[in-house]
Amino acid sequence: MDEEIKVNKEGSKDYSEKAITPRATDYSAWYLDVIDAAGLAEHAPVKGCMIIKPYGYAIWEAIQKILDKKFKESGVENAYFPLLIPERLLKREEDHVEGFAPEVAVVTHAGGKELEEPLVIRPTSETIMYEVFSKWIHSYRDLPLLINQWANVVRWEMRPRLFLRTTEFLWQEGHTVHATDADADARARQMLEVYKWFAEEYLAMPVLVGQKSESEKFAGAAKTYSVEAMMQDGKALQFATSHNLGQNFSKVFDVKFLNEKGENEFGWQTSWGCSTRMIGGLIMTHSDDKGLILPPRIASISAVIVSIGSEADRARVTEEAQTLGMKLTAETGLNIKVDVRDKRPGDKFYEWEKKGVPVRLELGPKDIASDSVVMVRRDTGEKTTVAQDELAETLKSTLEAIQKNLFDIALARKNERTKKADNWEDFKKLIDEGNFVLAHWDGTPETEAEIKADTNATVRSIPFDMEKEEGVCVKSGKPSKMRVIFARSY
Amino acid sequence: MDEEIKVNKEGSKDYSEKAITPRATDYSAWYLDVIDAAGLAEHAPVKGCMIIKPYGYAIWEAIQKILDKKFKESGVENAYFPLLIPERLLKREEDHVEGFAPEVAVVTHAGGKELEEPLVIRPTSETIMYEVFSKWIHSYRDLPLLINQWANVVRWEMRPRLFLRTTEFLWQEGHTVHATDADADARARQMLEVYKWFAEEYLAMPVLVGQKSESEKFAGAAKTYSVEAMMQDGKALQFATSHNLGQNFSKVFDVKFLNEKGENEFGWQTSWGCSTRMIGGLIMTHSDDKGLILPPRIASISAVIVSIGSEADRARVTEEAQTLGMKLTAETGLNIKVDVRDKRPGDKFYEWEKKGVPVRLELGPKDIASDSVVMVRRDTGEKTTVAQDELAETLKSTLEAIQKNLFDIALARKNERTKKADNWEDFKKLIDEGNFVLAHWDGTPETEAEIKADTNATVRSIPFDMEKEEGVCVKSGKPSKMRVIFARSY
Repeated sequence: MDEEIKVNKEGSKDYSEKAITPRATDYSAWYLDVIDAAGLAEHAPVKGCMIIKPYGYAIWEAIQKILDKKFKESGVENAYFPLLIPERLLKREEDHVEGFAPEVAVVTHAGGKELEEPLVIRPTSETIMYEVFSKWIHSYRDLPLLINQWANVVRWEMRPRLFLRTTEFLWQEGHTVHATDADADARARQMLEVYKWFAEEYLAMPVLVGQKSESEKFAGAAKTYSVEAMMQDGKALQFATSHNLGQNFSKVFDVKFLNEKGENEFGWQTSWGCSTRMIGGLIMTHSDDKGLILPPRIASISAVIVSIGSEADRARVTEEAQTLGMKLTAETGLNIKVDVRDKRPGDKFYEWEKKGVPVRLELGPKDIASDSVVMVRRDTGEKTTVAQDELAETLKSTLEAIQKNLFDIALARKNERTKKADNWEDFKKLIDEGNFVLAHWDGTPETEAEIKADTNATVRSIPFDMEKEEGVCVKSGKPSKMRVIFARSY
Repeated sequence: MDEEIKVNKEGSKDYSEKAITPRATDYSAWYLDVIDAAGLAEHAPVKGCMIIKPYGYAIWEAIQKILDKKFKESGVENAYFPLLIPERLLKREEDHVEGFAPEVAVVTHAGGKELEEPLVIRPTSETIMYEVFSKWIHSYRDLPLLINQWANVVRWEMRPRLFLRTTEFLWQEGHTVHATDADADARARQMLEVYKWFAEEYLAMPVLVGQKSESEKFAGAAKTYSVEAMMQDGKALQFATSHNLGQNFSKVFDVKFLNEKGENEFGWQTSWGCSTRMIGGLIMTHSDDKGLILPPRIASISAVIVSIGSEADRARVTEEAQTLGMKLTAETGLNIKVDVRDKRPGDKFYEWEKKGVPVRLELGPKDIASDSVVMVRRDTGEKTTVAQDELAETLKSTLEAIQKNLFDIALARKNERTKKADNWEDFKKLIDEGNFVLAHWDGTPETEAEIKADTNATVRSIPFDMEKEEGVCVKSGKPSKMRVIFARSY
């Protein structure tokens, strides 16, 4: 009975009757249909905001659990800073206010009165945190200060899209202070590696790590590093960022410390974050025309046992399915769902497919008679018959195989669609076809702006592992020493 | 070295030099000093808001982990609803808007423009959730709908106090929809029992469960149930609430379902919540003039090993302390802190005392020579010498003993300070002395208001387990059938 209720709630009839727009027909509509059909999220009554439904929120909880543990292992501690920031604080760092002022939501009235000073809802927390850090830090012995917070932030979005761009989103923001520039840079790079590890090991998303160009840098940062992923349409998605803030903020917020020589010095800072946007990237990396595909290591339901058979067999099959479910849960430690609803098997299969559950296990009278079960992989559709006494082991190895397969497919796509362009015509053509384009660029914001104006592509990454190579900029013809990655992006 | 940094960060020198105001001198100052000295939280640059520091946030994380698991075991699923609520939604339920309108913060500008409709920052999420629930629910098969969210909310506070009353606070809010009033009431009572269980088993806080009077009811509820705790000054603290909302909101937000008879019916709803305020209650229940006392089951650090000895012994004692720490962590699975800083032992003891770590283990050359360690309980100050090979077992049983002792002390206080009053003079005297007063009351809001005006005491709880008893109201002299609990409150 519990099973029945849960399923009805998440995968309602409305969705199951609506077909998913094929990717090839309309990629944007496909993306929204996948979210809708899986019951991940929906639009909120306030424009640009979203409601994260239980099945979607479970992905966020899994993300939080994995990253939070990793952050803490690296010495980071969680804290909580206020949602509301006095406008004067946001305005202190010049680049920062310029970057965020157009996007903020402003509280002007509260408690039935007009406020003396407007308060902005945090678009990010550098300003309020660093105002406070300046009081926490006195000497080099207080460093490094390693703080993270899991929070909601608000940035007014003109063209919102579920998960990818929403006015309010959930994220974590790490903020650290160090005694030297080298320590700060090492921490920024270390967290970037955490994001890469998480993307690849858990979300099965192969990513590029590198530095951002001046134009794409975070407002107020000395250097911005990012993790970039390729979506199925060849566009780039910024998965996470990590900033070396240098002393830009510490000078403005007076984050000083007494160094070992007894001199006052401004702290060297970093900030780094990832958000519910990652879920958008996850959806667009693996899903297909049948709906969502979840990598096993992030899926809240690892496998679903679906009962099949006629009315006459129903009671017996239901009992066997539930027993098998309990046994499999105990043996694997995984979350195994049992679907014994009185519905046509095809409808049940379809529902779990749309939800991207990695493995479906079909159990009917014939399977019971032969002590077996039919196993179907969500990624390949491959069907095999598995003896019940081998099921736990087979399931575990199949889940690992699915995890690897999803990564391999995404990696092959990324490799295949990362191409070199050595002249402007090729560059434009490759961008139009939806590729990551490796091209020489003269390194100036002016040329980057021209390229963007002509093609809507920008420098996504100056990859760390790129080899030096003499060449000329595809746009300006000026000399260049290295190729960078251009692409259109989300 | 890591140890050194962590300690400097949380318990800074500024604090350790500042004495804690004794409870008896100034209870309010004592409370704030305990928070300050332990490094739990501090005031934010925005009036009424707080910064929850890592050591305080660790308590919230522990609370979340325990309750979240319990909620999920009872079938509840987490989701996330928007921070911003269109003003028209808040205004729909009459009592609700009357209750919350004076407290809300209003966003009037965003994205550089004035908004067409102001948005309020959620003071609670009934309105936005139920607007959406009305679309999720179609038939009795969709029920019960059991949703929870962990979120921040904002209620403008005129007299803020860290943890107890802050303009922004963190909480969880559960919202359920049922097919019958009985189911809804059972769920409201079930969650109340979860809060009671959590308060008593983890926070060592004995509590009262009961119903609220009409005047103290949640804005829009049919019935409000609450968990009330007694603080050390005899005042009541509302620990958590659970509301049977009846059909009040479902009628306004059109939360309808097709019942088993095929008729349209409005859903029966509940909401229930607890917040960072609980941490204020925790602090005020157990702490003393030396600082914070944390019950072992909620403490993020179970025990601290403090190295002592002269400079000559330092290297050896440090090594032994670290080895012992690792061994004890492995054997108990607990978080054992090792403090090998080069400071006077007394200063180190004092710091951990203020942070309320349940057990201190002192290790010096003499202890090492005798394969023992000195164990000091934070609650009683009791000192014993324990053989190192019995340490893991002794520590575990000591922590359980501390947990029990803290509960017993609080229970004895509550019992001792819960007194019957049968006339108005006694009533006033007992309230003034800081008691929970069991008194007859005629059940009218008018009399309750008069009592409040005269004594500042209100009906805190109409306890579930109160026996029927004929009597007359202490204030009006009108007939009464049962005593209720009056007290002053936070």
